[in-house]
Amino acid sequence: MAETVLDILAAHRAGTATPAETVARTYARIRAHADPALFITLRDEADVLVEAKALEASGRTDLPLYGVPFVVKDNIDVAGLPTTAACPAFAYRPTHDATAVAKLRAAGALVIGKTNLDQFATGLVGVRSPYGIPRNALDPELIPGGSSSGSATAVAAGIVPFSLGTDTAGSGRVPAGFNNIVGLKPSLGLISTNGLVPACRTLDCISIFALTVDDAWHALSVAAGPDAADSFSRTRPLGRSGAMPPHLKLGVPIPGQRLFFGNKDYEAGYDEALARLAKLGCEIVEIDIEPFYETARLLYEGPWVAERALTAKDLLASNPGAIHPVTREITIGGLRPTAMDAFAAFYKLERLRRVSDYIFAHQVDMLALPTAPTHYTVAQVLADPITLNSRLGTYTNFVNLLDLCGLALPASFTDKGLSFGITLLAPGGEDARLAEIGRVFHGDTQLPLGALNAPQPPLEPVANAAADGEIAVAVVGAHLSGLPLNGELTTLGACLLEATHTAPDYKLYALNGTVPPKPGLLRVEANKGAAIDVEVWALPIDAFGAFMNGIAAPLSIGTVTLADGRGVKGFLVEAAAVPGARDITSFGGWRAFLAQGKEAL
Amino acid sequence: MAETVLDILAAHRAGTATPAETVARTYARIRAHADPALFITLRDEADVLVEAKALEASGRTDLPLYGVPFVVKDNIDVAGLPTTAACPAFAYRPTHDATAVAKLRAAGALVIGKTNLDQFATGLVGVRSPYGIPRNALDPELIPGGSSSGSATAVAAGIVPFSLGTDTAGSGRVPAGFNNIVGLKPSLGLISTNGLVPACRTLDCISIFALTVDDAWHALSVAAGPDAADSFSRTRPLGRSGAMPPHLKLGVPIPGQRLFFGNKDYEAGYDEALARLAKLGCEIVEIDIEPFYETARLLYEGPWVAERALTAKDLLASNPGAIHPVTREITIGGLRPTAMDAFAAFYKLERLRRVSDYIFAHQVDMLALPTAPTHYTVAQVLADPITLNSRLGTYTNFVNLLDLCGLALPASFTDKGLSFGITLLAPGGEDARLAEIGRVFHGDTQLPLGALNAPQPPLEPVANAAADGEIAVAVVGAHLSGLPLNGELTTLGACLLEATHTAPDYKLYALNGTVPPKPGLLRVEANKGAAIDVEVWALPIDAFGAFMNGIAAPLSIGTVTLADGRGVKGFLVEAAAVPGARDITSFGGWRAFLAQGKEAL
Repeated sequence: MAETVLDILAAHRAGTATPAETVARTYARIRAHADPALFITLRDEADVLVEAKALEASGRTDLPLYGVPFVVKDNIDVAGLPTTAACPAFAYRPTHDATAVAKLRAAGALVIGKTNLDQFATGLVGVRSPYGIPRNALDPELIPGGSSSGSATAVAAGIVPFSLGTDTAGSGRVPAGFNNIVGLKPSLGLISTNGLVPACRTLDCISIFALTVDDAWHALSVAAGPDAADSFSRTRPLGRSGAMPPHLKLGVPIPGQRLFFGNKDYEAGYDEALARLAKLGCEIVEIDIEPFYETARLLYEGPWVAERALTAKDLLASNPGAIHPVTREITIGGLRPTAMDAFAAFYKLERLRRVSDYIFAHQVDMLALPTAPTHYTVAQVLADPITLNSRLGTYTNFVNLLDLCGLALPASFTDKGLSFGITLLAPGGEDARLAEIGRVFHGDTQLPLGALNAPQPPLEPVANAAADGEIAVAVVGAHLSGLPLNGELTTLGACLLEATHTAPDYKLYALNGTVPPKPGLLRVEANKGAAIDVEVWALPIDAFGAFMNGIAAPLSIGTVTLADGRGVKGFLVEAAAVPGARDITSFGGWRAFLAQGKEAL
Repeated sequence: MAETVLDILAAHRAGTATPAETVARTYARIRAHADPALFITLRDEADVLVEAKALEASGRTDLPLYGVPFVVKDNIDVAGLPTTAACPAFAYRPTHDATAVAKLRAAGALVIGKTNLDQFATGLVGVRSPYGIPRNALDPELIPGGSSSGSATAVAAGIVPFSLGTDTAGSGRVPAGFNNIVGLKPSLGLISTNGLVPACRTLDCISIFALTVDDAWHALSVAAGPDAADSFSRTRPLGRSGAMPPHLKLGVPIPGQRLFFGNKDYEAGYDEALARLAKLGCEIVEIDIEPFYETARLLYEGPWVAERALTAKDLLASNPGAIHPVTREITIGGLRPTAMDAFAAFYKLERLRRVSDYIFAHQVDMLALPTAPTHYTVAQVLADPITLNSRLGTYTNFVNLLDLCGLALPASFTDKGLSFGITLLAPGGEDARLAEIGRVFHGDTQLPLGALNAPQPPLEPVANAAADGEIAVAVVGAHLSGLPLNGELTTLGACLLEATHTAPDYKLYALNGTVPPKPGLLRVEANKGAAIDVEVWALPIDAFGAFMNGIAAPLSIGTVTLADGRGVKGFLVEAAAVPGARDITSFGGWRAFLAQGKEAL
């Protein structure tokens, strides 16, 4: 049965299911799940069915989310439905979709409803809402996690295959970890926050929950993009999530810095996850993560809570009783700090950003941390609502302040059946790198999808075309994988798209006097040459100049025709360098020549 | 007589003057200038002479500022000299040079002393200091401008050929405009602010005063660079200031937005300057600059004054009487705003930044504004110290908030002998573009240097080598200046380095079926071809990929050997495309072929 975005899409395109049928199934599951606290506003099934039928009538099966249902955290605007931020007194009825919602709908996705949250997105627990406590999809005694509680449990329960949450301090990751699903917190500004009720406007992200990394990435690719309506939107190329790069260095806390608040099962789960990452080829590097903890403390001890107070300011003045008592207590704290406090904190943060930059530039490629240090029951959190909540942000609070991107992944179940998750974190803009490793890690766990009794689908094949912001380059010699100059590609952030060969229009020569030894590819008359083995690499387009700088005569970068007729940029040799060089065309490629040809000399 | 940095350097290198002689001349001029308010700390001549002699003994005439004297605004640390920020009660004696000072000294420059300023760099007038009012170098009745009053007048008076100032809201530009010198306010983070007494740490720049643009650029190239000791330092390639690009669009206020506070002479000076810019080939584009004015109002009405209060906090608490009364009144205002005020202002600023980005992306390349709207006498400002000061910031206050870089240039003298200046403003990182046009503009005015009775030296020839962060590309056909594809270069920010020709190792072919018509350059055996005309362009290295994307088969980018033996990247053609193409080698170049060859067909 189609559970994932990509499976549902495939079924719709194959005609084995229609969008209307998927909508009907969605509502059947909502009824079966029977959680009165999940939705703040559930649309009428009939209304959504009308949309589904209209979509079917359009015949636009090419739409990237053709007929895929999703839900939206109720601090994000959907035209015509109230936006409450889980505070009835705050509610308003927007006339426009948030930009992210509009993009998803334009891509064929169908809004089912608006989901419950910790009021004003303040909290990581999912219990701070007058609309009740959404049920953890795995165990009703446990908190669902928040603040995006409803959006996470709806995906874990299989109601919708993806949803929108938000993330300011971990709200898009912690509930993913507590419900065995994927939580993608994009880089700041990658998804427009136009139409979002601000928590901390300078830190807010709209995030994505899904059952798999491929699904989350697919939804992100639709929702992302610059938006003139959002001052905090940024032009950040999304890039392409390709094959998992080799030799990744993953930073982990030195053992004394690993906080689990007594949860031995989570501690063991983390060790197991790191062992899995090592098995997959990653190098685990223990680092001092105190600068990240110091940043995290800045968030709630610093001035950013004033941003929350700005959102609730009028209500705090006119009707403070309308605010959840815990949320009110936290938000009132935002009235106190001065602008001097704010700037003093910014200076500290700027220093910590430099430390973070240094760590990512010199020590590790990413961090691999627990998503949350432990898990609590609803009863525990209600008894101690602030302290336990703040513990849950141990590994998430610093992330947005440092403009890191994050990907929360299911990692394992504890013996007691609790979901344990890890989060990969990388510098802003490297979302695609997180997905490359995250999908492989999640696949390797062979965990079921969310709370469903369903296996993960096989990983999608990695696309072999360069994305926006990339340039495909065919390499034929010393830049091939494992050969001496391949590092020139990988250090510039290139990733391998495919190993293929050229059209039969080329000759290959072993050039004289090159160090390291290099071949030269020369175009001859069409069909008068041979198909030569090449690898096509995707290089970030702004790194191409640095790559070009390393290329010396007689080699040049021109256009190479591949076997299937595509033309890509690639290495060529000047014809003037060929006389006297050995024609090695018959080997079919440089690697084959290295393996056989040299011995034959 | 050598007055400029480059002339002094040349004299030192030629041996027509020694660093010690230059130091002696400097002190003679200080005595002759006889301004007791210029220096807060003047070093003993004997001490500087010892340094000069040591430098001479080193024989390091290659140092880029070998024996060039300079002065430092007294809010920037020089090891061993007190840093007062013009507030004796605040003074301390640093043990290390500020990073910028250290870099200049390591390059052979000699510190003469620390100059007076508006206390805590708060002010644009130069009259807010317990150390007196530095004398305007042109007219003692007029204010010198501030806050970098002493650093500007020292250069204008010919005491030193360059100096360090600072600029948070115009302090590095307004006094340049009032003293007929150049004020270079670099992009944020380009020069480290390590060792600077903060005014607004998020906005502060160390700036450079000089008699010419070439001098200011030369000093900048030494002082700039990332610095791990400064959290606000940025890695921004300096680039190279090349030939003035054609077709520049300069934004100017629509006439109703031009503020001169009744100064008709300045108004006329501005019109004259715009006419000169138009004569030099710039397109003058009238735009609505209200978003810039709105940003300027944010600066003093918004929370940034809290940053000034942070610096003076202890003194405000313990000894407020030690602060200049005007400065105290302004700074106390920084105690009031809340963190909520601060964030609300940041949101406004973020929106205005987007407007500014849009203007520079779509409407103009730069702004060309008056440096100051009018000029006041010392008596006028003392009578009305705050209002008149704030008027002077009309065209400067918004600049650092928007991360623009600025270059203040002498433009003309009014009939009454007042110096009028303009300032060019461009997005952060485009400092080199400002210098390219600024040097040509200043040269064209034929104004004397500062308050000296000395003509400007001829402009330095533009360097023809690509700088760090650039890649040189030889173009041979449709990318030549004025030909159809030249725009592909200029829109990517390329600038012309030189017109030259290749080594005599090439043949040139008119390719068949290319649109627009293109030639192909093919290397043949050494000395068996001809020298072919090429232009070498410098392209920002991160734009090279985008350029490459536009290059189709059979053209490629390889290495082209120039007539003088240098190899640069450049266009080549695949040999396989040559059969059937017309050999046009004998024309010596594509432009010659277009002029003669086509008719000959």
